[in-house]
Amino acid sequence: MSASGALRPNEIARLTGLARSTVSAVTAELKESGIVIDVQEPRAGRRAVGRPSIALKLNPEAGHCVGLHLGLDEIRLVIADVAHSIIAQERLALGRDYDPRAAAEHTRTSLLAAYERHGLDPDRSLGMGISVSGPVTPDGTILHSSILPDWAGLNVVDVFRPVLGRPVHADNESNCAAVAEMTWGAAQDEDSFVLFKIDLGVGGAIVHGGRILTGIAGGGGEFGHVCVDPDGDLCRCGNRGCLELAASFNRPLATLSQLHGRALSIPDVIALADAGDEEALASIAKVGHAAGFGLAMVGTILNPPLIIIAGDMALAGERILAPLRQAYETHVLIKSGAVPPARRTRIVTGAFTETDSLLGAVGLVLRDIGRLGASTDTGTSGTL
Amino acid sequence: MSASGALRPNEIARLTGLARSTVSAVTAELKESGIVIDVQEPRAGRRAVGRPSIALKLNPEAGHCVGLHLGLDEIRLVIADVAHSIIAQERLALGRDYDPRAAAEHTRTSLLAAYERHGLDPDRSLGMGISVSGPVTPDGTILHSSILPDWAGLNVVDVFRPVLGRPVHADNESNCAAVAEMTWGAAQDEDSFVLFKIDLGVGGAIVHGGRILTGIAGGGGEFGHVCVDPDGDLCRCGNRGCLELAASFNRPLATLSQLHGRALSIPDVIALADAGDEEALASIAKVGHAAGFGLAMVGTILNPPLIIIAGDMALAGERILAPLRQAYETHVLIKSGAVPPARRTRIVTGAFTETDSLLGAVGLVLRDIGRLGASTDTGTSGTL
Repeated sequence: MSASGALRPNEIARLTGLARSTVSAVTAELKESGIVIDVQEPRAGRRAVGRPSIALKLNPEAGHCVGLHLGLDEIRLVIADVAHSIIAQERLALGRDYDPRAAAEHTRTSLLAAYERHGLDPDRSLGMGISVSGPVTPDGTILHSSILPDWAGLNVVDVFRPVLGRPVHADNESNCAAVAEMTWGAAQDEDSFVLFKIDLGVGGAIVHGGRILTGIAGGGGEFGHVCVDPDGDLCRCGNRGCLELAASFNRPLATLSQLHGRALSIPDVIALADAGDEEALASIAKVGHAAGFGLAMVGTILNPPLIIIAGDMALAGERILAPLRQAYETHVLIKSGAVPPARRTRIVTGAFTETDSLLGAVGLVLRDIGRLGASTDTGTSGTL
Repeated sequence: MSASGALRPNEIARLTGLARSTVSAVTAELKESGIVIDVQEPRAGRRAVGRPSIALKLNPEAGHCVGLHLGLDEIRLVIADVAHSIIAQERLALGRDYDPRAAAEHTRTSLLAAYERHGLDPDRSLGMGISVSGPVTPDGTILHSSILPDWAGLNVVDVFRPVLGRPVHADNESNCAAVAEMTWGAAQDEDSFVLFKIDLGVGGAIVHGGRILTGIAGGGGEFGHVCVDPDGDLCRCGNRGCLELAASFNRPLATLSQLHGRALSIPDVIALADAGDEEALASIAKVGHAAGFGLAMVGTILNPPLIIIAGDMALAGERILAPLRQAYETHVLIKSGAVPPARRTRIVTGAFTETDSLLGAVGLVLRDIGRLGASTDTGTSGTL
């Protein structure tokens, strides 16, 4: 994609693997509906000489999308235009174990107020994407979740559809983060990558050939629950010895909070590390090492071109990346040094951290629109 | 695919995700070249009433393919028709650490002799597929291999191309086995699955949306080298504590051979187990348990619809599957009991064991032909 967010038809064909004729048919439909517009792009790079070529760009006037993130005791909400610029952002405090239907009603009231405040026409809403903390089946059923234990078995798409009366899409928060990174972030140039999210838990997503690997029951990319020690401690998922017990920042944060006599957040600890606090530095490095060991398992299995470190811990930058990369290189099968540079796995931090799931929820809506007429995947996160 | 090996155009469109118009264009091209022929199929199932429909079938007269498997001290070779019926099969004994160019020359001589013996026209050869024991880059470079240590860095496609003067495709043996299972075997109805191969090592393959996940350096699906114990024994790959140390049949076979005072093969041990030998039964169960633990890691990461157990150990059937399934269910994140039957991971044995890599090598050639005009993957194992 060009800096202006425009794509030429041949780029669309290459990225999607669709025939040129299919791309033409789909883009004609999108142009007719006003969702994409033609723009003239100057030619870039080695082929900079010659006439500008025609490219396609999302029309920011086309409408807006709603992104929701269902959290522990709150719902975060954004309204964004089709170029993913955020128009409005809200947090709805709901208290722990909030009721799903009451939450949907609260969301509706807040959305209508936001529409009015920002002069938006509810009829121009293109749809709603929902990011859920936990596995979601491709049809939107929440399977198994410690964040929202009472919601297990509930179909979140059904619950939120009446809010707007528009299409609703749901996926787990890590898959949403992957959608954001592949659409606008660190994975724009890779159609296969792994997203590894580290905060108070460990989650992730796998993208292969432009499609999210959702898994048969929505469990694809649940890296945090790989068993690394069958006799280990009990995890919140009910199994023993899960990777996230060592590779999340949950335990170190509790220890550091106790040490400092106040409830610290991950950004607080990163600030302490920046100020030279030894315990903060050591605990970030330790988690980086454990995460690198777990990622080496993922890397041995998938040998991906790109790994994106996401979640609040990505804000620690090289302090977490350096030990993570070192442990990865030690335990992965194919070592960087054994292959030419073009065949090496790159490990980088994501372009979005705090907003990745929300932006990705918006992305679910846009990807669904972009899929008109194209082949569909089994999951909500299909071919671009 | 029907029992006769025929496919209707709408089935092709569904399986490949290609537009109907693309399928028509490609099949027209294949019909013109004589590779596929029209057959009349009686309608089956609920729609059994009515006229027979037109389906497409590979034309067995269209030509033949060569499949090679590069082993430790021998090359196995098959010539098959486009319906994967084996016309000729050979083993070329070469001795350990055989020279690649001498092996190619030996292969050429044997192939020409087999052509003559079976009255085959060398000009009707469609190409050659090569199964390699170890990671292979998408362009055919052998990366890292304990089976053929001297071949590391060598491009096997370049070495074998002069043998026939036809297109040559190479992939690792587990990816070849996956090609065989998805084309003709246990994965014909699934476009996403995991193949987990257990014999003297542990290998595997991952297929997502009909495409093999090859990995950036050809390392995708190397399940045997996931580190399960960072302080464990040294593995042949150079890392410590790899899964295959516990989940392959290498060590038990050595122990049982010693116990019985003769060099046993895996089929020998399975025969002993069938006869009630306690040590044989216990060692199969132990490996099944270790493999199930490793597979639970893979299952937590990928949550696949289907896992195919391949390799010689698959011949042990329920004796290995029962402990494997039990360990899988214990350690995987999403338990069978927690999801409806349609969302459960099925674990089955493969349709082919001793011939899977060779048949898959043949499949590489046929898939390449079938890809004419369709979108290509980055690897040798692209879209069907």
